Amino acid sequence: MSKKEKIAFGKLNLMRNDLLDGKPKIRIGFVGGGPNSFIGYSHRLASRFDNRFSFVAGVFSRDIKKSIKFGISLGLDPSRCYNNYNVMAKKEFKRKDGIQALGIMTPSGDHYKIAKPFIEKKIHIISDKPLTATLEDAIKLEKLIKKHKVVFALTHNYSAYPMLREAKSIIENGMIGKVMLFNVEYPQGYTVGISKKNESTILKWRLDKKLCGPSMILAEIGTHAYHLLRYVTNLEVKEISAEVNSLSPELSVDDNAFMVLRMKNNARGSIWVSSAATGGENGLKIRVYGNKGSVEWFQDDPNNLKFVELNKPTKIITRASNFVSDLSMKSSRLVAGHPEGFFEAFANIYTEFANSIYDYNKNKKFKYTHPSIEDGVKGIKFIFAAKKSSKQNSKWIKI
Amino acid sequence: MSKKEKIAFGKLNLMRNDLLDGKPKIRIGFVGGGPNSFIGYSHRLASRFDNRFSFVAGVFSRDIKKSIKFGISLGLDPSRCYNNYNVMAKKEFKRKDGIQALGIMTPSGDHYKIAKPFIEKKIHIISDKPLTATLEDAIKLEKLIKKHKVVFALTHNYSAYPMLREAKSIIENGMIGKVMLFNVEYPQGYTVGISKKNESTILKWRLDKKLCGPSMILAEIGTHAYHLLRYVTNLEVKEISAEVNSLSPELSVDDNAFMVLRMKNNARGSIWVSSAATGGENGLKIRVYGNKGSVEWFQDDPNNLKFVELNKPTKIITRASNFVSDLSMKSSRLVAGHPEGFFEAFANIYTEFANSIYDYNKNKKFKYTHPSIEDGVKGIKFIFAAKKSSKQNSKWIKI
Amino acid sequence: MSKKEKIAFGKLNLMRNDLLDGKPKIRIGFVGGGPNSFIGYSHRLASRFDNRFSFVAGVFSRDIKKSIKFGISLGLDPSRCYNNYNVMAKKEFKRKDGIQALGIMTPSGDHYKIAKPFIEKKIHIISDKPLTATLEDAIKLEKLIKKHKVVFALTHNYSAYPMLREAKSIIENGMIGKVMLFNVEYPQGYTVGISKKNESTILKWRLDKKLCGPSMILAEIGTHAYHLLRYVTNLEVKEISAEVNSLSPELSVDDNAFMVLRMKNNARGSIWVSSAATGGENGLKIRVYGNKGSVEWFQDDPNNLKFVELNKPTKIITRASNFVSDLSMKSSRLVAGHPEGFFEAFANIYTEFANSIYDYNKNKKFKYTHPSIEDGVKGIKFIFAAKKSSKQNSKWIKI
Amino acid sequence: MSKKEKIAFGKLNLMRNDLLDGKPKIRIGFVGGGPNSFIGYSHRLASRFDNRFSFVAGVFSRDIKKSIKFGISLGLDPSRCYNNYNVMAKKEFKRKDGIQALGIMTPSGDHYKIAKPFIEKKIHIISDKPLTATLEDAIKLEKLIKKHKVVFALTHNYSAYPMLREAKSIIENGMIGKVMLFNVEYPQGYTVGISKKNESTILKWRLDKKLCGPSMILAEIGTHAYHLLRYVTNLEVKEISAEVNSLSPELSVDDNAFMVLRMKNNARGSIWVSSAATGGENGLKIRVYGNKGSVEWFQDDPNNLKFVELNKPTKIITRASNFVSDLSMKSSRLVAGHPEGFFEAFANIYTEFANSIYDYNKNKKFKYTHPSIEDGVKGIKFIFAAKKSSKQNSKWIKI
Repeated sequence: MSKKEKIAFGKLNLMRNDLLDGKPKIRIGFVGGGPNSFIGYSHRLASRFDNRFSFVAGVFSRDIKKSIKFGISLGLDPSRCYNNYNVMAKKEFKRKDGIQALGIMTPSGDHYKIAKPFIEKKIHIISDKPLTATLEDAIKLEKLIKKHKVVFALTHNYSAYPMLREAKSIIENGMIGKVMLFNVEYPQGYTVGISKKNESTILKWRLDKKLCGPSMILAEIGTHAYHLLRYVTNLEVKEISAEVNSLSPELSVDDNAFMVLRMKNNARGSIWVSSAATGGENGLKIRVYGNKGSVEWFQDDPNNLKFVELNKPTKIITRASNFVSDLSMKSSRLVAGHPEGFFEAFANIYTEFANSIYDYNKNKKFKYTHPSIEDGVKGIKFIFAAKKSSKQNSKWIKI
Repeated sequence: MSKKEKIAFGKLNLMRNDLLDGKPKIRIGFVGGGPNSFIGYSHRLASRFDNRFSFVAGVFSRDIKKSIKFGISLGLDPSRCYNNYNVMAKKEFKRKDGIQALGIMTPSGDHYKIAKPFIEKKIHIISDKPLTATLEDAIKLEKLIKKHKVVFALTHNYSAYPMLREAKSIIENGMIGKVMLFNVEYPQGYTVGISKKNESTILKWRLDKKLCGPSMILAEIGTHAYHLLRYVTNLEVKEISAEVNSLSPELSVDDNAFMVLRMKNNARGSIWVSSAATGGENGLKIRVYGNKGSVEWFQDDPNNLKFVELNKPTKIITRASNFVSDLSMKSSRLVAGHPEGFFEAFANIYTEFANSIYDYNKNKKFKYTHPSIEDGVKGIKFIFAAKKSSKQNSKWIKI
Repeated sequence: MSKKEKIAFGKLNLMRNDLLDGKPKIRIGFVGGGPNSFIGYSHRLASRFDNRFSFVAGVFSRDIKKSIKFGISLGLDPSRCYNNYNVMAKKEFKRKDGIQALGIMTPSGDHYKIAKPFIEKKIHIISDKPLTATLEDAIKLEKLIKKHKVVFALTHNYSAYPMLREAKSIIENGMIGKVMLFNVEYPQGYTVGISKKNESTILKWRLDKKLCGPSMILAEIGTHAYHLLRYVTNLEVKEISAEVNSLSPELSVDDNAFMVLRMKNNARGSIWVSSAATGGENGLKIRVYGNKGSVEWFQDDPNNLKFVELNKPTKIITRASNFVSDLSMKSSRLVAGHPEGFFEAFANIYTEFANSIYDYNKNKKFKYTHPSIEDGVKGIKFIFAAKKSSKQNSKWIKI
Repeated sequence: MSKKEKIAFGKLNLMRNDLLDGKPKIRIGFVGGGPNSFIGYSHRLASRFDNRFSFVAGVFSRDIKKSIKFGISLGLDPSRCYNNYNVMAKKEFKRKDGIQALGIMTPSGDHYKIAKPFIEKKIHIISDKPLTATLEDAIKLEKLIKKHKVVFALTHNYSAYPMLREAKSIIENGMIGKVMLFNVEYPQGYTVGISKKNESTILKWRLDKKLCGPSMILAEIGTHAYHLLRYVTNLEVKEISAEVNSLSPELSVDDNAFMVLRMKNNARGSIWVSSAATGGENGLKIRVYGNKGSVEWFQDDPNNLKFVELNKPTKIITRASNFVSDLSMKSSRLVAGHPEGFFEAFANIYTEFANSIYDYNKNKKFKYTHPSIEDGVKGIKFIFAAKKSSKQNSKWIKI
């Protein structure tokens, strides 16, 4: 019986992570993600997806009434709905059944100060990206995490799609040879049509560099693209030349960045991220070319991977099919042919965060399959390097 | 601010069903879906997806040790892991915190007898498809449900994809005119390569007509296609001509069916379902043509809908975009551009099942947005009519 | 150097049929295809494409002035522009430089009587499809051709696409195993919206069964689909069950046909042809499934072929790539990546017609790579069988 | 009757350029394009496509025997097969029926010296791209053409695809608003796998900068991309920052270029051209974003255009459909749904070259719809600017 048949007929478990296998659920709280927050909803669903977390506490508003009301609506005990993260850290720490992990989905300028009191109480952290709004915060956060030995995960969720991970496996296994060229693009259009009048209503804290960092587009989606590239290729960037602009007529923040990259292994590539690509909805695509083959993955069609070997017909590898690597298969839940999407990838990060906590508790070692604090710091360095290059007329800047 | 901007920036809730809004969670149990069951996993995840159910009990094996072991692994109280559905019905009924709803994911031949003791105790039922293995069972089940006034949902999950529902809305709103033609196809290949030797290992109970009904392929995917057609078009079939075969050389069950349909409104169409379409993974597609336009939806690319109006350019409507109907928008969770998939659709059925229960408890009326017992009975009639036509050399059979 | 490199860098000739290699150009005339005729234009361009024919005479109108005017506009000698095919046959025959081949692109009801005087003068015939409007004419034409030993080609142009031919080669080479299942669809929408008022303006002679045969949709595109199936699979149909309708409200001819087929090798399949598929432009697709693999070709994306082997990743084979068969490569003109289209396929038929003539003149044997008179007769039998089945309530009719 | 119906049923002529409408055929000769030349074949077929040219003379080899042999094989009079372009210019000029136009498809380093003697004899020129190998040659050629008042066309064939021209029309009509962003990519893989050993066999004259100019990849495909951008947007580049490399391990010429562009209207964009994109066959794509909408065209799927208006569903406009501009419709030959490809676009350039000659002969004015000498000169300036920028570490260089 082939692997495919085994899966199709239930002889092989895919992820099926609702099986706890004797591991207790991890108690988690959230700071951020109020009533209308898409990202808050995503984090909560991701934590619930594989049955690994009990969601028990949170700060959902600075107004205690609103925070309690929303918490109740999510099924929380009102006494564990807070309006202040310092208070939450202190009170949860005192409880026997206090939280063991914290999810943070506030503007990135607040990540460090929110995480600090929890880390100091040995609570593991999963945070939205980018890591922080400044390099100083990023470095302080890294030090704190290492000092207190907590698990840290950054939700670069795109890196957890099964077929993106298949691309990574293919490259790691040498199946495209030496990487010499790549292209990452992320052409969205969500700021097109914004006017002076409605800009602050729509972009809110993204207009505040203290909260968002020096470049809206680099923070919002640039770091995703940069992480994806590093994750898939296992390569690091040597230097970068960037042209970062605000193209939309009435917009006051960066909405487009063209970046050319020289890699440490001498490969060349480009990253293009935009919210000025009118009509673009997501559009994240990565193409990596080696001297023996290439891979192409597109978030809008995430269950397929295009794989070409030199002088062979193009292959379309489907998620959970017979031919995928263990890394890819373990990141899947459904048999081939049934679409998985954004939430499954997001949930992978949460479940792997849970696994990291279990593993650390057991072995006192950190072994991550999800984005780490180092990835977070590198993302912030990337933002500042690209912005600096652009200000210096696309001069090459070492990262 | 457009609807899109509102959604993108959190001013408009999509489904966001983890907000309980004062409704208590519904206590649910499952019969079926043991350790390696894909469909068991799907039901459990779907019930957890929107935070509406507490999963508290179940029968996972006829061996009580296995059932308890698996239940514990899912986080259940061992005392609520049973090995017999009659016992479960009785014991759960005695508890104050007993189950309020039951999910059934056993072979369809067992659906009626499993559901019966629970229905008689006023427990609401959500069942996998097809409804039963015989028409007699289907009719008895329908009567029982109506007699005891319980909510019933059938997990024709494909009908809950947002963009399939957009197709339904477009047709209901007259945007393609009068439906005159359709085509539904579902070309899978999962039985190709099965040999006499491994058939029973792979197909298991599907080889037993008492459990699977008279035609494997019609039961497994035929009823999905048939329901989808009726759901999207709001049309009913008048008569059917079918050619149902077992094409794979060593297979002992039906693996392919071509069906031509005459509708009550005089439209014509065809349904093709197969597990002999070598290499096919899912492939469910529906195309409906009216005298003013047409729609096309493809499960392998579920977030887009092709919509053509006569003498206008083809439109590609994306999930959760500005232009979709309320029905479609309410069936969505994510902003446009981020892929949703199989589980979200499945979860829609569960969440609507929860809504049906809330509504019935409040108003004592049944108002379903999910597939109902009537849909289930029609599915069984379809199987028997198609099989009969095929046996009579494709004679037209009234449904 | 790989075959691909050889081609890319000019070391290997693709078709490059403008090289005459010592063969004289064949003098050709046309009957039909006046000023606004798309099919007339297609035939003329196809004959010119590979430099194999000299177009020297024709009948373009029953009005001699119009015929001459149009002929001059095409660069013809006015004395060889006729208004009567009998006259043309006689006069051309008397000339030393008279035509050696005739292309016919009139309504099919006229094909036999037009071809007759030319065949009797040993002029080779290339004709548009379907062969005739009646079975009697078809059989008479076949006899005449065999009696006078002329080359005959039928322009089932779709069968000459390189990647359709690659599908044929793959099947012939046993790469998908034994064919057990197929599906051919051709969902066009060109008659949707036609009203009683404008029907005759638009459909013209198609409304006249003497010219068009018993079923517009079967004649127009049904025979293409049927030929394609036979060509690709090398299989013959045993019997057919059909539902042929006129679905568009104000249309007086057939616009849709669903057909199920039982093949002599026991394979099953269906053909769906329509001009009622609102919004459909071409849409011709063929899928063939064997017990070891499958192929899928789609005229709207003609330069790629989908090829699946059991339990292997889907392959996309591109036209003129390294991996294609000789038959496919010889049907190509351009390097991979540059799109070829409809005219190249059409021209292949003409060039192969020229080759058949050269070959016959040399060896007095007929060896065709293009559709033949037998194919034409079988197409007419198919039309009458399908129509008969439909009239008898989809009864199975032997072909 | 809609335009579509008119076309479908022959009431409206598409291009149908085999109708001469009283214009005599133009006598043309070729220099270059010997037996195995793909580009020679393309030029000859393009000239024959619409019945506008008589091909009567040429230089196909420096060896007179080979040239004559090849010319005969193409149907030429042996006395008009030359081995030297100066001789050809002189002899053809003396004939009453001498050539009126010359097509040049030699390496670009030879274009100027080949064109010169013909231009001086008032013979119109159609040349392959890039214009020349040096800027000096380009400027001298431009002067000569203007001095002698001959028609000049450059075969940037991609700009003549109907749906690319539809994109141009949409932008010209203001339907996407002000252009603010674009992306052109051309990721081919044809030099991947070339080794030191076989490089000269495969790349031949491309290794010689005198024949190919300073950068293989910029000459081969860079100028196509650059022209396409200028043609579609009607915008001119202000300055360029480029990273041009030879990435393939054993290759001695440029195989990849990333370029960022600042436009005179302040739009930003990028061009990526490569022969190092392993597995890439053609892949030419252009996306243009305005503040009200966007267009996307992809050579691999040339018959469709993606058009998005802000906050409206994506439209897929098909070639020759009801909605296309006159420019696009006139560039089409076939009804919608039947694929056109590379040769039709190439033939458009030739037919428009013929029209330019007719028009000039009639009105003594130059009015071009095809790429001109100015376009050619700009292409050469682009190559040198990009190469200069790359040598200066991606410094911005004014064009």
